[in-house]
Amino acid sequence: MKTLKKQLDELQKLKFNSYGKDFLLTWEKSENELRAVVALAELFSEMHQAGKSFRTFDTGLAISIFRDNSTRTRFSFASAANALGLGLADLDEEKSQIAHGETVRETANMISFMAEVIGIRDDMYLGEGNRYMREVAKAVQEGFEKGVLHQRPTVINLQCDIDHPTQSMADLVHLKRHFGSLEKLRGKKIAMSWAYSPSYGKPLSVPQGIIGLMTRFGMNVALAHPEGYGLIPDVVELAKKNSAKCGGKFEVVSSMEEAFRGADVVYPKSWATYAVMQRRTPLLKQGDRDGLKALEQECLANNARFKNWECDEKKMKLTKGGKALYLHCLPADISGVSCAQGEVSAAMFEKHRIATYREASFKPFVIAAMIFLVRVKSPLAALGKLIKNSAKG
Amino acid sequence: MKTLKKQLDELQKLKFNSYGKDFLLTWEKSENELRAVVALAELFSEMHQAGKSFRTFDTGLAISIFRDNSTRTRFSFASAANALGLGLADLDEEKSQIAHGETVRETANMISFMAEVIGIRDDMYLGEGNRYMREVAKAVQEGFEKGVLHQRPTVINLQCDIDHPTQSMADLVHLKRHFGSLEKLRGKKIAMSWAYSPSYGKPLSVPQGIIGLMTRFGMNVALAHPEGYGLIPDVVELAKKNSAKCGGKFEVVSSMEEAFRGADVVYPKSWATYAVMQRRTPLLKQGDRDGLKALEQECLANNARFKNWECDEKKMKLTKGGKALYLHCLPADISGVSCAQGEVSAAMFEKHRIATYREASFKPFVIAAMIFLVRVKSPLAALGKLIKNSAKG
Amino acid sequence: MKTLKKQLDELQKLKFNSYGKDFLLTWEKSENELRAVVALAELFSEMHQAGKSFRTFDTGLAISIFRDNSTRTRFSFASAANALGLGLADLDEEKSQIAHGETVRETANMISFMAEVIGIRDDMYLGEGNRYMREVAKAVQEGFEKGVLHQRPTVINLQCDIDHPTQSMADLVHLKRHFGSLEKLRGKKIAMSWAYSPSYGKPLSVPQGIIGLMTRFGMNVALAHPEGYGLIPDVVELAKKNSAKCGGKFEVVSSMEEAFRGADVVYPKSWATYAVMQRRTPLLKQGDRDGLKALEQECLANNARFKNWECDEKKMKLTKGGKALYLHCLPADISGVSCAQGEVSAAMFEKHRIATYREASFKPFVIAAMIFLVRVKSPLAALGKLIKNSAKG
Repeated sequence: MKTLKKQLDELQKLKFNSYGKDFLLTWEKSENELRAVVALAELFSEMHQAGKSFRTFDTGLAISIFRDNSTRTRFSFASAANALGLGLADLDEEKSQIAHGETVRETANMISFMAEVIGIRDDMYLGEGNRYMREVAKAVQEGFEKGVLHQRPTVINLQCDIDHPTQSMADLVHLKRHFGSLEKLRGKKIAMSWAYSPSYGKPLSVPQGIIGLMTRFGMNVALAHPEGYGLIPDVVELAKKNSAKCGGKFEVVSSMEEAFRGADVVYPKSWATYAVMQRRTPLLKQGDRDGLKALEQECLANNARFKNWECDEKKMKLTKGGKALYLHCLPADISGVSCAQGEVSAAMFEKHRIATYREASFKPFVIAAMIFLVRVKSPLAALGKLIKNSAKG
Repeated sequence: MKTLKKQLDELQKLKFNSYGKDFLLTWEKSENELRAVVALAELFSEMHQAGKSFRTFDTGLAISIFRDNSTRTRFSFASAANALGLGLADLDEEKSQIAHGETVRETANMISFMAEVIGIRDDMYLGEGNRYMREVAKAVQEGFEKGVLHQRPTVINLQCDIDHPTQSMADLVHLKRHFGSLEKLRGKKIAMSWAYSPSYGKPLSVPQGIIGLMTRFGMNVALAHPEGYGLIPDVVELAKKNSAKCGGKFEVVSSMEEAFRGADVVYPKSWATYAVMQRRTPLLKQGDRDGLKALEQECLANNARFKNWECDEKKMKLTKGGKALYLHCLPADISGVSCAQGEVSAAMFEKHRIATYREASFKPFVIAAMIFLVRVKSPLAALGKLIKNSAKG
Repeated sequence: MKTLKKQLDELQKLKFNSYGKDFLLTWEKSENELRAVVALAELFSEMHQAGKSFRTFDTGLAISIFRDNSTRTRFSFASAANALGLGLADLDEEKSQIAHGETVRETANMISFMAEVIGIRDDMYLGEGNRYMREVAKAVQEGFEKGVLHQRPTVINLQCDIDHPTQSMADLVHLKRHFGSLEKLRGKKIAMSWAYSPSYGKPLSVPQGIIGLMTRFGMNVALAHPEGYGLIPDVVELAKKNSAKCGGKFEVVSSMEEAFRGADVVYPKSWATYAVMQRRTPLLKQGDRDGLKALEQECLANNARFKNWECDEKKMKLTKGGKALYLHCLPADISGVSCAQGEVSAAMFEKHRIATYREASFKPFVIAAMIFLVRVKSPLAALGKLIKNSAKG
């Protein structure tokens, strides 16, 4: 429990106030707020490992709204809610009256009478997901101000079209533990590279989340992708500015090899092109199946020109000492395992497989930390009490 | 917490015994039982607002069976169960072995070994929903008497073909808070009016619930609908009798305008015609798609003759001082928002929107109160203890 | 609470260590481990009946994976989890990213970060279900050993292609209570007989579970089925060996009448033929609809040759004193109730209906006992504490 004390000390030194604030984009958060999430996630993880409960609530609901499939994030959110003492209530839009012409602002209030937190995944439509989260947040804010809701539930982004903060923060915890401290990330090179996949339409939120977050901690971020696979220009711009401010580097390169050269960390992962995502949104909205089919064909054909964008042994040899840390948000498209040819060779994935599981293992604790910090008024006092009680139990 | 004391005093003055009784129709309950639900719902709401837990159970299940879509009631039931300390278990009939020829009485017992309460929504078929609830209740009663079940779970009607007691009781709490007391409802006029909707097949349970309940409290109830849109005759008869007994008025009128004239409260809401619901039930059972399609066309065409049955500014001006309280169970069909033309004009709905959200906000507390009163043997003693503990916490 | 003391004494006399072990097949368990489950299930049932909580966990998840429909087992697992204080999280494979090419070993780890137990039903494919459970168990074992998981969740078989241990153990508790003790089962004759059903493809796991378990307790087990309806040969072999070792009898006979003659207990239930199940697995995997349709026709035609394999009054008269205990895992195919002709006559089922409900009622307590014994390091000490606390409460 020594590390537990260490994490608590770390938290006590930070000045931050996350109380009552939604968690929608990491770049809306101060560095100290992010550091607090990291330290608390580690503290909760230690407590869990030691068999100590960090239950914080007696009752209350954690609402989830998944507008896309999910395993990891769904179970991470469920785990975090349960560990804090909240009951999970999933809004299944098909079983609700939403089709019945109900407005978002109405639904948001109707599900929130006893809600502490609302976790939302909405990552299918460019320009839509994050906007939807803000619409929900605005609606419950109005409901709270007008006396409809006794408390204003907090909205947490479980992946949108722009960012995937629970993923990037879990990645940050993983990096911290790998390198020893957040300070040691300074000057380390991370290659966020596009990789080939036989699927199409994957969100841009993971690479955007990574370049938006890691530039905050002074890392040298190299973003690599084939021509035409650029990210949302605003986010790329933001990464540049972060980098200038925080003393790291940010560059966009045009091959996985170039990004990997000398890298301490690599994150090879497929995504759709920004242009395709823009064309796809109206097609999806109109339910234009033929248009979608044609677009898919076009994209897969285009993707196929970049089959060599695979993370394999040869490319990994280019990294620092040939031993870069491999990151992936999972599930990966593994050549010869989950598809004929994909993002990573079978041998390379197998070598790093357990490490990627460990990377994922921080997500429930990151989510629990986010919820705790936004819902508990005096988090340090409450934590002291939790730790004291758990020492007795 | 002064109001908390007031509600507890109110409860202490009432003579009632709800222990172990199902909640299927408000008109099967004594006035004091209804008053107790109202007072306790308010007390729970106060406690929740003050951040005080009213958790009553350590473990135990609240089972829900939704045979129709639901947002509000689903989340209200989930919220109430969670706040009382019960785990929610939803019976998804598609994932169960019910298609496998299992009888209702068997299923009812199989899901109830650790159940405290079973909440059921079954509102699609006239003559079926309430009957199904009673079949479930009878089955668990048999299971309990024969030693299969250690306890007899309570059945709560979450909307059937006849009544929607959790809605009408939430409406009653809303009216009490609006006018100051249940006594002040005496002599107030409420207009329960049919309204135009471009959909068809809406249950009759809300208007029936309103005329069946509000006549108990001496309100002057005016039921308005176009010819052919009458409610179940037995319920209309009951409303008349209630009214005669409780000192209010009950009248059936033939225009929204007439009902609204001088009204203190208006409740404009669409429903299907009784005759259509009767014809629809066998078609639904036989899965006769063509028959249903033809019936829908016929109904929509018939509805369309009454497009002027919309709650708009002009009609609202007829109400007392032009300022009647607008009620709706939500979601409303709002002209120009959720449909081209509907139950209420956009301006009128927007004016009352927040108030309708507040109206809905009482539902979780009403359900929690219902569960508490039927499951706790000495509710007053238990409440005293809860309040004492929450004052410490 | 006298019986409570008795069950605790019974447990204290047994030497067993179930801690950390999966529950996949009853025949992988020592007799004392099985006796401990029975005694603890009875103890939990007594506590529940007396309104005493046996909540053991503050937080933690019980994961369920249902790859086939379920009512009883689903609610039994949910009930057991809730009673022990665990939150239920169901893995809905359709809403997860499993279709996305995720491997079983990855998914198993991704859902397990805070899991205490994983309950799995996978009974559709011969040669697959139990294998899948072992794959999950192996994956979480690896995750635990490699530091991904803080704790190694326990896998519990909620019915596979080979065994249905939560069912057979609930049946064993029922038999114990009926005859007075496990010792009194010695020499009692149980007829596990095939019965006619107008459906096809029912798993072999119930009859296999029964012959594999009841032969452990010295019962005389008569397995009856038409030619071609044999069980997995290995399990039949195992039943023979059990019987030889444990001092009972095991015989395979060719008519329901022969099995019923002089029986103390009868268990008439339909199942598919082993050969059909073997042919069905590849057809299901290939999604060969025409092949499956043809196989179904062939099977139903074959089944129809054995319509006289119905448990009726005449056959029941052959049992000891005409009064054998009738068992069924439910739902039964009841002639004239759930089908035109089935496993049991309406009159015979009605006579035993409540007793079969009681038989089913032990399942939640059996599952709770299994979870408790595998997750609690010093179960006797913990139980002593639970009982002491519940006596206060």
